[in-house]
Amino acid sequence: SKFGFTLDTGAAESAVQAALSCAHLHLLGLHCHIGSQIFELKPFELAAEVMLEFMAKLHEKYGAEFEELDLGGGFGIKYVQRHDPIAYDEYMHRVSHTIKDCCARLNLRLPRILIEPGRSIVASAGITLYTVGSVKEIPGVRTYVAVDGGMADNPRYSLYQADYDAVIADRAAQPREKIVTIAGRCCETDLLQEGIAIQEAKAGDTLAILATGAYNYSMASNYNRLPRPAVVMVKDAVPRVIVKRESMEQLLANDL
Amino acid sequence: SKFGFTLDTGAAESAVQAALSCAHLHLLGLHCHIGSQIFELKPFELAAEVMLEFMAKLHEKYGAEFEELDLGGGFGIKYVQRHDPIAYDEYMHRVSHTIKDCCARLNLRLPRILIEPGRSIVASAGITLYTVGSVKEIPGVRTYVAVDGGMADNPRYSLYQADYDAVIADRAAQPREKIVTIAGRCCETDLLQEGIAIQEAKAGDTLAILATGAYNYSMASNYNRLPRPAVVMVKDAVPRVIVKRESMEQLLANDL
Repeated sequence: SKFGFTLDTGAAESAVQAALSCAHLHLLGLHCHIGSQIFELKPFELAAEVMLEFMAKLHEKYGAEFEELDLGGGFGIKYVQRHDPIAYDEYMHRVSHTIKDCCARLNLRLPRILIEPGRSIVASAGITLYTVGSVKEIPGVRTYVAVDGGMADNPRYSLYQADYDAVIADRAAQPREKIVTIAGRCCETDLLQEGIAIQEAKAGDTLAILATGAYNYSMASNYNRLPRPAVVMVKDAVPRVIVKRESMEQLLANDL
Repeated sequence: SKFGFTLDTGAAESAVQAALSCAHLHLLGLHCHIGSQIFELKPFELAAEVMLEFMAKLHEKYGAEFEELDLGGGFGIKYVQRHDPIAYDEYMHRVSHTIKDCCARLNLRLPRILIEPGRSIVASAGITLYTVGSVKEIPGVRTYVAVDGGMADNPRYSLYQADYDAVIADRAAQPREKIVTIAGRCCETDLLQEGIAIQEAKAGDTLAILATGAYNYSMASNYNRLPRPAVVMVKDAVPRVIVKRESMEQLLANDL
């Protein structure tokens, strides 16, 4: 991958050597990151083993001792029903055992362990609300439900065909009997989801796309000069605007 | 597609009927758009024929006369060597003949013709300049050239694996002997191009990605809280800033 120093080629070892040889640098620890939306524990255990074996080698060859090991992120979240996230408890239990066993076997002092569970903390807390503008049925082909947002506020379907769950907000508990494609308002294909089951939609309905609390507002653009929406925090049914809606003045502020 | 009124299903005819039945509406004409990055003339001629035949049908059935026909855009541009754009002259010659022949055959008054050649006017005029940060060689796999931009300023490779040409700016005329993958700085795969031939690159070089005058700045985001770059117009070697660099204050202005 484009990231980091490769172990296999010796690049990681060279980087450590370079850092150790600088009198004014204190090499605190190592970091790794193995991917995204991971639903199994085994890859995290393997990553910990690989990193600790590398640390043991560095200890033996250079006398290096590391206070920290950052095992990165990648915890999968439940975008749709079939996603089965790892339970934090099970992760802690299994990975900490692996680390303790490895350290004992390799004769290493236990480093402080860091993890980066960002998306798995905030993604499920976010819901994006759209208004349905029109419904276009093409018999024998598909039904489009067009909304007043799209790839400009959430490019993840356009980028990766990312799965999302969606419901018509005021009928969320009703059966989802209609298979539709959710289209955004940008001047290209701009889809938010294809072949998804939702409740029968009509113009004016509020469509909710779920689990948009991570990698959504942060990835939003002003494509087609669309201002970015507001972000509203809701706690105990009390709403509070935490990010203001973007104004047209802001969009044009840098144009000379 | 998600766009417009389908001819086959009768949706377009119903929409025209609805408009004609409104005393306060004046139905000026029809619009179509057949796609993007089109390098052949035939599809444009076919589109004109289809639209004029539809107009003739509407004239016959409802007495409707249309002053305008907008044939949309889709003119391909030369992102890379193998792209062979349509010459405007040839388009004008062939499509105007098709339209005149059709109108004569269908007994239609010649409508005013509009086209939308936006990208083909401005795309080639744009060049994005990046600074090379590092070069990562993974023997037997690939070489990454990492730059200080990426999917945040140009998401088109991430979205569509769009082709671009690139050169090291101060050695643009030298042979391109290195096959590399250009990586951006965002916290994911973030590539600008894969397997592209450029001059040997080193940290500090300026990498130019060509033909970024359309669908680039307009699609840019602040992903990873990266401010959008400035846009500089150059005429007769005189530079002039036309869009200011985004400031950190602007990025944070709406956070409450």
